[in-house]
Amino acid sequence: MSKILAINAGSSSLKFQLFDMPSEEVLTKGLVERIGLENSIFNMTVNGEKKKEVMDIADHSVAVQLLLQKLTEYGIIKSLDEIEGIGHRVVHGGELFNDSVLITEDTLQKIEALSDLAPLHNPANVIGIKAFQDVLPNVPAVAVFDTAFHQTMPEESYLYSLPYEYYEKYGIRKYGFHGTSHKYVTERAAELLGRPIEQLRLISCHLGNGASIAAVEGGKSIDTSMGFTPLEGVAMGTRSGSIDPALIPYIMHKTGQDADEVINVLNKKSGLLGLSGLSSDLRDIEEAAENGHPRAKLALQVFADRIHKYIGSYAARMCGVDAIIFTAGIGENSDVVRERVLRGLEFMGVYWDPALNKVRGKEAFINYPHSPVKVIVIPTNEEVMIARDVVRIAGI
Amino acid sequence: MSKILAINAGSSSLKFQLFDMPSEEVLTKGLVERIGLENSIFNMTVNGEKKKEVMDIADHSVAVQLLLQKLTEYGIIKSLDEIEGIGHRVVHGGELFNDSVLITEDTLQKIEALSDLAPLHNPANVIGIKAFQDVLPNVPAVAVFDTAFHQTMPEESYLYSLPYEYYEKYGIRKYGFHGTSHKYVTERAAELLGRPIEQLRLISCHLGNGASIAAVEGGKSIDTSMGFTPLEGVAMGTRSGSIDPALIPYIMHKTGQDADEVINVLNKKSGLLGLSGLSSDLRDIEEAAENGHPRAKLALQVFADRIHKYIGSYAARMCGVDAIIFTAGIGENSDVVRERVLRGLEFMGVYWDPALNKVRGKEAFINYPHSPVKVIVIPTNEEVMIARDVVRIAGI
Repeated sequence: MSKILAINAGSSSLKFQLFDMPSEEVLTKGLVERIGLENSIFNMTVNGEKKKEVMDIADHSVAVQLLLQKLTEYGIIKSLDEIEGIGHRVVHGGELFNDSVLITEDTLQKIEALSDLAPLHNPANVIGIKAFQDVLPNVPAVAVFDTAFHQTMPEESYLYSLPYEYYEKYGIRKYGFHGTSHKYVTERAAELLGRPIEQLRLISCHLGNGASIAAVEGGKSIDTSMGFTPLEGVAMGTRSGSIDPALIPYIMHKTGQDADEVINVLNKKSGLLGLSGLSSDLRDIEEAAENGHPRAKLALQVFADRIHKYIGSYAARMCGVDAIIFTAGIGENSDVVRERVLRGLEFMGVYWDPALNKVRGKEAFINYPHSPVKVIVIPTNEEVMIARDVVRIAGI
Repeated sequence: MSKILAINAGSSSLKFQLFDMPSEEVLTKGLVERIGLENSIFNMTVNGEKKKEVMDIADHSVAVQLLLQKLTEYGIIKSLDEIEGIGHRVVHGGELFNDSVLITEDTLQKIEALSDLAPLHNPANVIGIKAFQDVLPNVPAVAVFDTAFHQTMPEESYLYSLPYEYYEKYGIRKYGFHGTSHKYVTERAAELLGRPIEQLRLISCHLGNGASIAAVEGGKSIDTSMGFTPLEGVAMGTRSGSIDPALIPYIMHKTGQDADEVINVLNKKSGLLGLSGLSSDLRDIEEAAENGHPRAKLALQVFADRIHKYIGSYAARMCGVDAIIFTAGIGENSDVVRERVLRGLEFMGVYWDPALNKVRGKEAFINYPHSPVKVIVIPTNEEVMIARDVVRIAGI
């Protein structure tokens, strides 16, 4: 029995989950917040009980030391030697990584070099990796990339119709994100369907605060809605998704913002928040819409409409679809969004059951038994995918 | 019998077609090029013969005078009094015009005010209108807008998920273009199908150097691929169509161009031209692809793939589709593009006949008789729509 840590490091945060493998039992999980700021917060769940401590945590290495100390202090492990592997979520693997990889000096340099493509994320991921190298230098570590699963896309999917040299010189192409989640739910869907994934055409809807849709044919991602960055695609909590590119200079001229500031508005102040003027949280939007708030209704309708259309386009992309999957916060919990997304897809063989659709947060088929296209709610689990990849790649 | 002129004025050009109404017979048509430049060119077709004269034409008023002089000189009309109406194509009607309109001082001011939304097009259209007012002040003139047909879109289609005040303050929304063409071919499709348009769900693919797809339900446009400008949507001859908006500042930083210059690249150097590196003309791309040119093959595949996916999404948008229409240069003539667009849509009831698909430039059904979804090639005719609207609006 091996204990594996799954880590997701942000610029001032560290999310962790400790797995017992191969049982996949979660021994503990938690989150360190406000690293490097005053009043940092250490959260950890011990035997179902949430522990929270406020203290100053100077940097990620200190956060890692604290985490390891707490693991023994709370008796979750007896000795640090029990930790046999560490998996790090890394946002961008560019075209260099089409699978998870053992972290060596060489791979770490490559991940750092990819920071140009993900300036907000990769540097933070690298800080997390180095913090563990400082404290546990002899434990094998594996990088698990958000983009890797989508590296199977054919070039007609990943290339923009821009001057070709932009791809060659600057790496401008569609990368796609949420890959670990799309991989997990599509593999799980094949198990639930009792069919080899090689024979399936699946549309995976990862709908959280960030949202992306993927077309997965034979277990391989062949198209996805996010692009060069996670801004493209459907409308999200605060992100606009795709808009007319000519709007960027138009908004610049009208508001006096520069291009980066406009993109910041598109990332942070658009989507459900921008349309509703209320909140980026779909639960707030649903509640307000139910109370008749016109722009909340509008935001909800736009959100569902964009996903609905992606399902149509990805069914066309794969010459049909065998199952549609809903996952992540909204996908797992919002029957309202699922209903609006699914309504009107009968023409392509999607017959869903309003009663079954009431499910929240657990695996369930929500189609009528006779429906040619199945519809499945599957809670995502990126952490267990990371732990599995550590075992597979590090040979534990 | 009335004679009606249909006019399409560009900044240095004037396209014209003279109709006999209601017979809709084309009496003559032509094009004045390089207006205001040296060696302007006056082209006109007289009894099937193409006349071409090179001379200096100082401005649009001179071009109009010359046109009218030639009409009598060549005996196409006996007197200018025979011209009972003039229809002007105007690109942008904003939210002010949901139908063609009689040109008065008030409407002309509104069209000029909309130049902010279409700085390249509306001012040129206005120049054309004023040139005819100078020369034929007493002939009623009607403005026919490219955007008007799409004014029936519901707000969930036309609103971007941007901060809502961008719509209120700056008119930022999807307008859509090629409306006159989409209206013409969908009305014609209903005639060819022998069914009331109110009962039909149609997807119209206007594929020329510019390309847009429209979802037309019950005769009303409910969604379209072009947006705030004609840049959005599918890949085109030189236009990128939709891309990740975050690419604009990234390309700016990488190439040192400003935002307007990047949008210029997206408008002028992208699409088929950018991907292939060869040409913006689909005929060249098809030929090179046939000869094995890898990037021509790629450009062709990307071009068709984007349209294919729009058809899927618009079928979803309308809960199914009754007929798919191909029009404009590529849509009417390229069996290669139509085949790639249609291939793999069988799951939604589209069964097309490769033999019938060989048709070029004329009205034809290209589906198998048993196909639930019909596929129709319809040559577009924006000019006759303009002439019809002049008769209808001016009450001729």
